[in-house]
Amino acid sequence: MPLPASSLLVVGSLAFDTLETPSGNAENELGGSATYFSHSAAWLAPKVRLVGVVGKDFPVRHIQEFKDRGIDTSGIRTVANGKTFRWHGRYGKDLCNAETVSLQLNVFGKFEPTIPAPFRKSPFVFLANGSPKTQRAVLKQVEKPKFVLADTMNFWIETEHAALLELIQHVDGLILNNAELIQLSGQPNVVAGARWALAQGPRVVVVKKGEHGAMLFADGEVFALPAYPLERIVDPTGAGDSFAGGFMGHLARAGNASFADMKRALVYGTVLASFACEDFGLRRLFALSEAEIEKRVKEFAKVVSVDLSSKGR
Amino acid sequence: MPLPASSLLVVGSLAFDTLETPSGNAENELGGSATYFSHSAAWLAPKVRLVGVVGKDFPVRHIQEFKDRGIDTSGIRTVANGKTFRWHGRYGKDLCNAETVSLQLNVFGKFEPTIPAPFRKSPFVFLANGSPKTQRAVLKQVEKPKFVLADTMNFWIETEHAALLELIQHVDGLILNNAELIQLSGQPNVVAGARWALAQGPRVVVVKKGEHGAMLFADGEVFALPAYPLERIVDPTGAGDSFAGGFMGHLARAGNASFADMKRALVYGTVLASFACEDFGLRRLFALSEAEIEKRVKEFAKVVSVDLSSKGR
Repeated sequence: MPLPASSLLVVGSLAFDTLETPSGNAENELGGSATYFSHSAAWLAPKVRLVGVVGKDFPVRHIQEFKDRGIDTSGIRTVANGKTFRWHGRYGKDLCNAETVSLQLNVFGKFEPTIPAPFRKSPFVFLANGSPKTQRAVLKQVEKPKFVLADTMNFWIETEHAALLELIQHVDGLILNNAELIQLSGQPNVVAGARWALAQGPRVVVVKKGEHGAMLFADGEVFALPAYPLERIVDPTGAGDSFAGGFMGHLARAGNASFADMKRALVYGTVLASFACEDFGLRRLFALSEAEIEKRVKEFAKVVSVDLSSKGR
Repeated sequence: MPLPASSLLVVGSLAFDTLETPSGNAENELGGSATYFSHSAAWLAPKVRLVGVVGKDFPVRHIQEFKDRGIDTSGIRTVANGKTFRWHGRYGKDLCNAETVSLQLNVFGKFEPTIPAPFRKSPFVFLANGSPKTQRAVLKQVEKPKFVLADTMNFWIETEHAALLELIQHVDGLILNNAELIQLSGQPNVVAGARWALAQGPRVVVVKKGEHGAMLFADGEVFALPAYPLERIVDPTGAGDSFAGGFMGHLARAGNASFADMKRALVYGTVLASFACEDFGLRRLFALSEAEIEKRVKEFAKVVSVDLSSKGR
């Protein structure tokens, strides 16, 4: 009998993005790590709890959009005299890396998250990309979570290295991209980097490789997936957080984080990330359906499955 | 009942490489596309036929090494007053791209392959990286092959673009790396690039992505594999040709090139390429065993397999 679905807490940013891609531009698009994560995870997990901060410029309709997807918004704090985090990014033809045109942290720059009492017993916790000190402070407020996954990025690896190393001793899983893992570990490749990271404390390392897929290292095992083969990528913003949302959403739904659960979770992460890339911002995640997700999961399973049993014809 | 294994013809280079990698250096190491390809394929296919050219400096012991692996060397021509192709490459820490320190084409520069009469009815043919005009000239000498795969590289895409486009109208499959496919097609990503390439004529496109795996596009389907997760890469030279050797070796052994055959062939290509990276030059391919190959195929199948049936615990 499956366990009842577990609560999933995410702490991260809510933002407005201005996006320039070869497919076109979008201004003041809803963005932010916690936003992508929670709207992705909510397709799988019924109890997503969001903690973040916005300014007075954040329209109530976006709060309603969270609620409409069953996301608990009681942890979103509004700073009356502040403005919401804003990012302006520009992608080149290959859509791999965004150049930051401008960045205003605004209220997110002084974000000291307080986890509401009803959220503190969330078995699954995602610490979205942010200061490792802030991530650690969140961790001290939650009560014996079953599985905590922390994201990070090059900026924190460079500027808060010691705090980051301290943080990862206290999480179950670390998620980051391949270049970040190589930078953090000082190792020459992802496999050696993952071995290094596992020796620092976490049981699980998830490596995001964008168009090249993802890898999972845990329990002495390795699992690797290519990306879902998309012919047209409109906007890769938020793909990593949508990936994490699919991954954690599946685990929360399963109520468990065995290696077999995590393998399936990596498939859901891959599929949710692929949808996120198909339109600007969160538009495609809003327009999704459970049937579309399950259809793509089946298609993707076909893309990666091979029957080795017949070596002849 | 499986068909009897089919003959596999390869036309390409034999060389001496001087290699500099973070793991160390190797001088005058046996190399060349046809060399890696045939020594890789011979682990799977019993009838590999090699056509190439060497100088008087090519030691007879390397000819004997081919023979010892059952590779038919009667198509290797020795130019009495010439020297064998030499390449000197240097790899950076990430082992992704080699800087060419020096290159002497020597006898390979004037290579106009003549396919010996007994080789002309080879059902499986690999046109290793070389001038598209030369590749086309080879194709005119073989009689109704079942499956012809052609490799190419950035140099030919830039310098013999028209000849390359002409060539790929006449082959069953094109194999190249992801950057080359994007360059050749002018498309923004591999998936769109493969669609473009398939519209030019070939039934099959195989995309090599190095540490990120490989993709297969054919018959309206897509198959994708990550690379075998190696913690230590000593020398990636020849990995692409070893990959092609595993791929074509499996097809020749199967006597067929259905999509299911090609999926399995991609696994064998991945595994042979991973071995090739574990030591300088061909050393690891020489020291292999069938049992080691099958063991790694099984390990790799585990790395990529996921059971989606249980969504709960």
